[in-house]
Amino acid sequence: MLKIGILGLGTVGSGVVKILEKNEENIKNKVGAKLKIEKILVNNLNKKRELNFAQGILTNDAAEIIDNPEIDIVVELIGGEYPAYDYIIKAIENGKNIVTANKLVIAKHGKVIFKKADENNVQVCYEGSVAGGLPIIRPLQNSLAANKIKKIYGILNGTTNYILTDMSKKNKEFADSLAQAQKFGFAEADPASDIEGADAAYKITILSLLAFERFVDVNSVYVEGITNIASEDIKLAAEMGYIIKLLAIAKNSDQGLDIRVHPAFVPQDHPLAMINGTYNCVYLHGDAVGQVMSTARGAGQMPTGSAVVSDIMQVSKDINFNQREVQRIDKFLDSQVVDINEIENSFYLRLEVYDQPGVMAHIAKIFGDNNVSLASVLQKQKDNPIVPLVFITHQVKEKDLNKSLKAIESLKDVVKINNIIRVENNI
Amino acid sequence: MLKIGILGLGTVGSGVVKILEKNEENIKNKVGAKLKIEKILVNNLNKKRELNFAQGILTNDAAEIIDNPEIDIVVELIGGEYPAYDYIIKAIENGKNIVTANKLVIAKHGKVIFKKADENNVQVCYEGSVAGGLPIIRPLQNSLAANKIKKIYGILNGTTNYILTDMSKKNKEFADSLAQAQKFGFAEADPASDIEGADAAYKITILSLLAFERFVDVNSVYVEGITNIASEDIKLAAEMGYIIKLLAIAKNSDQGLDIRVHPAFVPQDHPLAMINGTYNCVYLHGDAVGQVMSTARGAGQMPTGSAVVSDIMQVSKDINFNQREVQRIDKFLDSQVVDINEIENSFYLRLEVYDQPGVMAHIAKIFGDNNVSLASVLQKQKDNPIVPLVFITHQVKEKDLNKSLKAIESLKDVVKINNIIRVENNI
Repeated sequence: MLKIGILGLGTVGSGVVKILEKNEENIKNKVGAKLKIEKILVNNLNKKRELNFAQGILTNDAAEIIDNPEIDIVVELIGGEYPAYDYIIKAIENGKNIVTANKLVIAKHGKVIFKKADENNVQVCYEGSVAGGLPIIRPLQNSLAANKIKKIYGILNGTTNYILTDMSKKNKEFADSLAQAQKFGFAEADPASDIEGADAAYKITILSLLAFERFVDVNSVYVEGITNIASEDIKLAAEMGYIIKLLAIAKNSDQGLDIRVHPAFVPQDHPLAMINGTYNCVYLHGDAVGQVMSTARGAGQMPTGSAVVSDIMQVSKDINFNQREVQRIDKFLDSQVVDINEIENSFYLRLEVYDQPGVMAHIAKIFGDNNVSLASVLQKQKDNPIVPLVFITHQVKEKDLNKSLKAIESLKDVVKINNIIRVENNI
Repeated sequence: MLKIGILGLGTVGSGVVKILEKNEENIKNKVGAKLKIEKILVNNLNKKRELNFAQGILTNDAAEIIDNPEIDIVVELIGGEYPAYDYIIKAIENGKNIVTANKLVIAKHGKVIFKKADENNVQVCYEGSVAGGLPIIRPLQNSLAANKIKKIYGILNGTTNYILTDMSKKNKEFADSLAQAQKFGFAEADPASDIEGADAAYKITILSLLAFERFVDVNSVYVEGITNIASEDIKLAAEMGYIIKLLAIAKNSDQGLDIRVHPAFVPQDHPLAMINGTYNCVYLHGDAVGQVMSTARGAGQMPTGSAVVSDIMQVSKDINFNQREVQRIDKFLDSQVVDINEIENSFYLRLEVYDQPGVMAHIAKIFGDNNVSLASVLQKQKDNPIVPLVFITHQVKEKDLNKSLKAIESLKDVVKINNIIRVENNI
């Protein structure tokens, strides 16, 4: 029998307990040993819960799990940076194997955690940290290992994908769709980490770590959320054959790693454009395998629970048969993230200008002077002194685009620049 | 240093050699040891080849690999049942770890091979046997292990998917599209195993083995190929909102395993309908994870090479660090495949009838007498004494449908039954 201690009994923690109970027989067969939940850390011992536990299982003292000599595997599901990180380190030092779904801790502190695990001859598994139940961490470690991965595009945040899908299908503004996502439980009461892109940034940092075997400072990843996307942008994108998605992108280049999270125009006929609602998707390109795309529900009790319990089973089997999966993460190098200003992209620009002769000529001249060449221009007639003007540029470095935007912004004919969104034509 | 012997230097074998050379440094880093190709079995030592090898690498004597005490891993890529099976068994008995892409041998003889491997404390890896480079074997073994898999739908044969896509997009007949597939190298000179469905049947048997932990006799799997699909069927399917795909299906039920390969109507808006050309796709449903879909190129030198080399790396790492991945396949049970006659499906039927009063009434009465209820009927007016008649039934057992078809066939108003294709509305 192997004994498990779970830190945290929120959404995912409850899912893990349910799956361990529901598929108990199956799991025992696959692992070769019975798995027993020994202790679960909760904040409040007296809270009413959906699940029932025997006396003594629930505790509000983390030490009863981390320092418990009976416990073989510590499952960290409290989320956030601290105390989760400290618990993980302490548990490793105590010789526990770790299963976690904590993207923040792995993205920020992976290097220290993996080193510590190696020194203590234990495993750290984190399939649940990226894209819920979608198998992607282990496939990058094994089934795709022969490849030099060139690039990864991910839709890695279910909340924002739900909001963008809802805005797009129902012609709604961001705030309305966010409110609906919160009502349905697809967005937290404080949705900042999702809608501002941080959540996706942690996840793409983890995928990039495995795909390119490089550690990067997660704080150097460029992050832009979806709070500025207007219904008007989605409508214009559709007219031009695009759908707006929050993309997490990682590419390997001679200059370093190009890692970023931002909304992007995705061509309507690209498979990524078809990933809707709370689904997540990972689309990658390896030098041998070519393109691989996987999609599944990216969050929630059962999908993430599936990944966590699968990790628990793998570690349990290894313990039971006295094996250990070696990851050789000690061989990974540190790497810089390429400055976003040096990245080339095509851009969508939406402006409001006074409807006066010469305005287009002024703007076009500024673009020309800054080597920004235009792929398309859309000017809509309106019975209004202020008219919208939409451009899509060819490939241009961000810094060159920004230079021209600064000049354009100061033109007296220009009311405002409403939005700038990157266009990903070569996914 | 670990030494590899490769049996077979065809398409996939050459791809494996290329990847091992191209990504040598990368691979060494991940594995922790240099991998050296010690010997390669070929038919003809004097054949001109794209790749160059040092003196003594190529051999036409399998024993120089299988019985070679220097060799750690035997990579079987000759395909077919014999002598591949004998080589694998002998190599295992000699303590070699095995990597193979041989779906036929694993589907037919997996049970014996896995048992033999356990007895000899070696591993057998076969990620390359299903869906080329798409990670699916190991994900079923680990990242998805917590799930009770309920059903799997696969597009597992690139040749037939290419042909059906070409027929569909270009309004062509089967023979023309087959000829084009052969011209482009997407179909063999003898395409029987692909177009008649056997190839997909081996693959779904392997997926079913891992998903349901059941061994089945591959000969009891119902198999129907695409040779009878006419351009007319594809056109009618499109009119009714469907696309025709060769589906490989595996479902777990109380009656046993429902495993079959046959062309099927797939709703146009289902993700499987969008998998075109030589792409493969696995779509599965687990009780915890929900729906997961993965797609990648399903065959070819580099994609399959990617899976094979990834397996070689995994085994090499395990050997190097004195580990062994335990699969517990000894716990898998034998299972029956449910008789296709007992399976319920919706069906598309295309008939030719003499355009005479009463014919529809006669046919409808036969359906009614046999409890076959109709979902839709399509009758096209033509200036012709013989007219086509198309039905889609509601769910009905195959045996009940067949009883009515026998009666309908004998009606004097009925010229012929052109085609019967299963309709999969509930994927």
